[in-house]
Amino acid sequence: MKTNLDCIPCFLRQAVMTAKDLNLNEDQAQALIRRTLELSLQMDWSVPPPLMGRDVHRLIREMTGDKDPYLAKKITATERALSLLPEMESAVAGSSDPFLTAVKLSIAGNVIDLGVATGASTDIKKAMQDALTATVNQQAVDSLRRAIQDAGDILFLTDNTGEIVFDLPLLEHIGSDKVTVAVRGSPTINDATMEDARRSGLTDRFRVITNGTDIPGTWLDECSDEFVREFEAADLVLSKGQGNFETLNDNERRLFFLFLVKCATVSRMTGEPVGSFMVLENPS
Amino acid sequence: MKTNLDCIPCFLRQAVMTAKDLNLNEDQAQALIRRTLELSLQMDWSVPPPLMGRDVHRLIREMTGDKDPYLAKKITATERALSLLPEMESAVAGSSDPFLTAVKLSIAGNVIDLGVATGASTDIKKAMQDALTATVNQQAVDSLRRAIQDAGDILFLTDNTGEIVFDLPLLEHIGSDKVTVAVRGSPTINDATMEDARRSGLTDRFRVITNGTDIPGTWLDECSDEFVREFEAADLVLSKGQGNFETLNDNERRLFFLFLVKCATVSRMTGEPVGSFMVLENPS
Repeated sequence: MKTNLDCIPCFLRQAVMTAKDLNLNEDQAQALIRRTLELSLQMDWSVPPPLMGRDVHRLIREMTGDKDPYLAKKITATERALSLLPEMESAVAGSSDPFLTAVKLSIAGNVIDLGVATGASTDIKKAMQDALTATVNQQAVDSLRRAIQDAGDILFLTDNTGEIVFDLPLLEHIGSDKVTVAVRGSPTINDATMEDARRSGLTDRFRVITNGTDIPGTWLDECSDEFVREFEAADLVLSKGQGNFETLNDNERRLFFLFLVKCATVSRMTGEPVGSFMVLENPS
Repeated sequence: MKTNLDCIPCFLRQAVMTAKDLNLNEDQAQALIRRTLELSLQMDWSVPPPLMGRDVHRLIREMTGDKDPYLAKKITATERALSLLPEMESAVAGSSDPFLTAVKLSIAGNVIDLGVATGASTDIKKAMQDALTATVNQQAVDSLRRAIQDAGDILFLTDNTGEIVFDLPLLEHIGSDKVTVAVRGSPTINDATMEDARRSGLTDRFRVITNGTDIPGTWLDECSDEFVREFEAADLVLSKGQGNFETLNDNERRLFFLFLVKCATVSRMTGEPVGSFMVLENPS
């Protein structure tokens, strides 16, 4: 998707929120907002919003001299999510439709997003409980179920740290012989990197690759050649989160997006209210 | 108050919303957002936010070649509010505390604001009904009641068109012999001008003056000399709306602010949640 005019105030809002989240001092916060205004003016508005997100968070890493400013928050989110994993696993095992429950948990984990700042709670335990009562388009879930059964190999594009623990029941359902998990190439916001995947136990059970970028999305123009080859060769791609949706929704290969609707622009695009659990097949 | 970092995304959000409200075409909307980004970079962040509001809405008037782009909306708001006036007057007359009811109606009218875009309904009839059940700080209302009784002459700073009709019961309570009503010097957003005051019947019953500016607030540095003299000479000043609060809250003369809290920044300043009915004495 292109950057929408509504995205511009949102870039600024995210920058202000990030300044607070990372306890930047007043001078740093002002400089961050000024640079975000400049970047908003300079950017090509025909590219998807996560490219701006990348620029803003690069700036924050430069300003703070911290290569991974969200590391402490990511470690906490991972620990909390891992502490809930046994409960998630037994919810899936005890469910009348374990696949559906695993899909809903995976989508619910998408609430652990320190980028968009919807003001929604990122209470991880609540996310798990919400998942069990959420509704998802049953037709899309059935289509996803069949596509996973039919695929020989699947590329699973992750989104945030903590969220990747919520993906584990679904990844286990697919099976480590069939799925490759992709993470970001380097830290950006709280998106999952190889190190976060390791900390979450994913690397022990699955083949994990990186996409080679620090964009909070999957923008193929900048991904590594190896990643693009895997993306193109996979029988099926599953894509988690709104950032991946924003950067891949115009892609013409078959893939499924699993995400929470987080803003009015994507709500208009999908026709579903903010907060909706989405399973969306592409091309639709 | 100074412009807060949180105000910057809000400027952009208001510009985007205004583009939609006024049905600007895509090129105009993009140009407006770009210019708002530039203005946000150029502006002195130590001045109150309404000065930026002024710049953005000047730009819109230039771009559209329309001296009063909100005129149709202002006329509609005036007509709707006037159609409710008999009901407001009988609510005041039938109240156990007519002054308090008039104060609450005046504050409730502050919802008719096309600038801040809180997403709150500007349903004028609902505003009137809400007023009758709203709670206001009783101590502040009693202090206001005494201050009005004690004052020989009062300057009443209005805010929006339509809202000025909601001010009528309070203005009638004060009495035309005692009160002078001030409006903006020329159109800005839907703020009330002399023409709007005339259309609302205010000029028939009260002495009405202008502040000489197109700022959606009362920034004395730019108001006309006549207005500043009236402001300084009045025994008491009553100030309606958040824009007047933002531009006058550091002023040291005695005045009362009557407004709805419309954003998180002013909520933090006042310690009251967004949507609160405020009667605030200055200096507090």
